[in-house]
Amino acid sequence: MGSDADELKRKAAEAALRHVESGMMLGLGTGSTAAIFVELLADAISEGTIQHIEAVCTSRATEELARRRGVTIHEFNDIDHVDLAIDGADEIDPQLRLIKGRGAALLREKIVEQSAEQFIVVADESKLVERLGVGVLPVEVVRFSSKHLLRRLHDEEVEARLRFDDGAILVTDEGHHIIDVMVPENRDIADFVADLSSRAGVVETGFFPSEASFAIIAGRAGVTTRTRK
Amino acid sequence: MGSDADELKRKAAEAALRHVESGMMLGLGTGSTAAIFVELLADAISEGTIQHIEAVCTSRATEELARRRGVTIHEFNDIDHVDLAIDGADEIDPQLRLIKGRGAALLREKIVEQSAEQFIVVADESKLVERLGVGVLPVEVVRFSSKHLLRRLHDEEVEARLRFDDGAILVTDEGHHIIDVMVPENRDIADFVADLSSRAGVVETGFFPSEASFAIIAGRAGVTTRTRK
Repeated sequence: MGSDADELKRKAAEAALRHVESGMMLGLGTGSTAAIFVELLADAISEGTIQHIEAVCTSRATEELARRRGVTIHEFNDIDHVDLAIDGADEIDPQLRLIKGRGAALLREKIVEQSAEQFIVVADESKLVERLGVGVLPVEVVRFSSKHLLRRLHDEEVEARLRFDDGAILVTDEGHHIIDVMVPENRDIADFVADLSSRAGVVETGFFPSEASFAIIAGRAGVTTRTRK
Repeated sequence: MGSDADELKRKAAEAALRHVESGMMLGLGTGSTAAIFVELLADAISEGTIQHIEAVCTSRATEELARRRGVTIHEFNDIDHVDLAIDGADEIDPQLRLIKGRGAALLREKIVEQSAEQFIVVADESKLVERLGVGVLPVEVVRFSSKHLLRRLHDEEVEARLRFDDGAILVTDEGHHIIDVMVPENRDIADFVADLSSRAGVVETGFFPSEASFAIIAGRAGVTTRTRK
């Protein structure tokens, strides 16, 4: 927690925690900011300032952390309702559209966050962009066709690469591959994603057009809440 | 091959085989009619009437059959092009839109058939319907959320059930579950599928709106070729 960025993430997570009420079913995100939130949540539960919290997790990594810290965790298939999801994002635009998935958890994140009554994005200000696509758009694809799709994208002159982890092709929690794609500058991201999604074998993309209810952004000047413009 | 239906399937498969040319990369479908086609193809290769055939398969079951019969099989990820795919369907409407997936192979089928230059549907006339949705629409979903989605559909008063196989929940070749859904009578199938597909966790549906190039249908009155109306 030494760096300035970590301090900002903590401030955003602290602000998100104030939206948690006793008795809620939470959806816990994945990544560095989400992990800080889980730690703060677990502290609050231990201290008794928040009670009767249950949660579902968007990755095995988050589940391990939350269980270790004593948070009551359920399988997503066993619950019917998520009151509040809290998660980070890789890029956030002024319309509160997101790019997520650099932590390879985009599929479970989107499932949980679509099902949540409210989804709060927490981030430091470095994640704010004017236009999505500064970095890659992660795309989750089935293993049967991942390399085939990669070559098709290259044929279409789209910059894309299969994600590796420790020297091997990364396999997600649901058993898929991830292709990191650069959104072509002359393409609208929503159109580009619609085109990708129409191809069988593309399971989900890291483009979250309307899932976020609001964003809590920590910057040098303080913590602000952003709603859709 | 005793029954009338089997005899019709064989007639359709024989007619499809006449579209296969030496040197082609084929996409081999899954199910009873596709299996008959693979047998006829293997016979033709053995007899030398068709040469230099290579193929990709839409299921492990078809791959086993084709390999056993000596057809040269590739991994889909290793090839760039499919000349011709041949597969059956569960329902075929006058616009040549299909419902597929009762054999649980809809995902690999759609991947291969979308990538094929031509896709011939082969079936007996019992598969022709005026309106799709006579039987179930198979929907492939990730395991993480399959039961959650099933309950949501029930909440929306959509008739749906998780597919079982030998007493256990069926797991597809790509590691997913299948929910068999009855398309509500008051819903247009394309709209209904678009709604389903927008939900994270839905990998693919058995609705094939535009994949088929033409259909070869065997009936009591003979074999006919149908194009899109």
